[in-house]
Amino acid sequence: MAGCGLLYLEDLYVGLRFECGSHALDAAQIKAFARQYDPQPFHLDEDAARGTFFGGLAASGWQVACLAMRMIAEHVPIAGGLIGGAAELRWPQPTRPGDILHVTSEILEVTPSRSKPERGMALLRTETRNQKGELLQVFTAKCVVPRRPG
Amino acid sequence: MAGCGLLYLEDLYVGLRFECGSHALDAAQIKAFARQYDPQPFHLDEDAARGTFFGGLAASGWQVACLAMRMIAEHVPIAGGLIGGAAELRWPQPTRPGDILHVTSEILEVTPSRSKPERGMALLRTETRNQKGELLQVFTAKCVVPRRPG
Repeated sequence: MAGCGLLYLEDLYVGLRFECGSHALDAAQIKAFARQYDPQPFHLDEDAARGTFFGGLAASGWQVACLAMRMIAEHVPIAGGLIGGAAELRWPQPTRPGDILHVTSEILEVTPSRSKPERGMALLRTETRNQKGELLQVFTAKCVVPRRPG
Repeated sequence: MAGCGLLYLEDLYVGLRFECGSHALDAAQIKAFARQYDPQPFHLDEDAARGTFFGGLAASGWQVACLAMRMIAEHVPIAGGLIGGAAELRWPQPTRPGDILHVTSEILEVTPSRSKPERGMALLRTETRNQKGELLQVFTAKCVVPRRPG
């Protein structure tokens, strides 16, 4: 686990892990997010959701992504902030009302830039699991990380 | 361009395009989203943003993704809804206050399921450009699409 200081490229290594906390998700939060960003029946209404692919109310994958982002922003102290140029997301199973989302991140790669000596890239893999340990989301992002000045 | 009816797997073809409308993004929206989901200085405050990688206020990439999602949900009438199991995102350049986001989607692949005769997969590529035509986000998602019922 990482400590409290700001982390530069030199401080990162493959396998470095971050505990990013947890978030309890309920039906009201699921519906509020959906009304704003993903207004589809299976994210908005229990009854309408029953006859769909999900068979019941499910959170928008984008809500699961946004909640993970907030938890990473609060718990992964990379110097200069979390700046991603690309990301991949997978949702192996739906996120449901009552799920408690646990988020952990891990450094998969650390690559100094060849052209820009003051920085590099880190590949960060973030998992969201519920209280049963079921994997709800895997999110992998390439982040820009500065080298330690001087 | 697609018409108004619900689209089944049989209705989709490579190159089918959807105009998903536009959205004017301002600094207040950028900061409000960031407070909730991506609380980093370059998304929250003009002055704090000046000394960062972005050199000024920039929208969270997740906001750009969520706005695109809403516009797709409203303009891509796939039967059963837009249900993605995986997505890839790229942000070639920052999204700024004052940008007017134009969103278009295109079908890249249509693949019947081998194991599940009642459905298949479509690969949907969605671009977000600003009023200058600059590419801000490319978002590619694998979606579950039902076949037209017997």
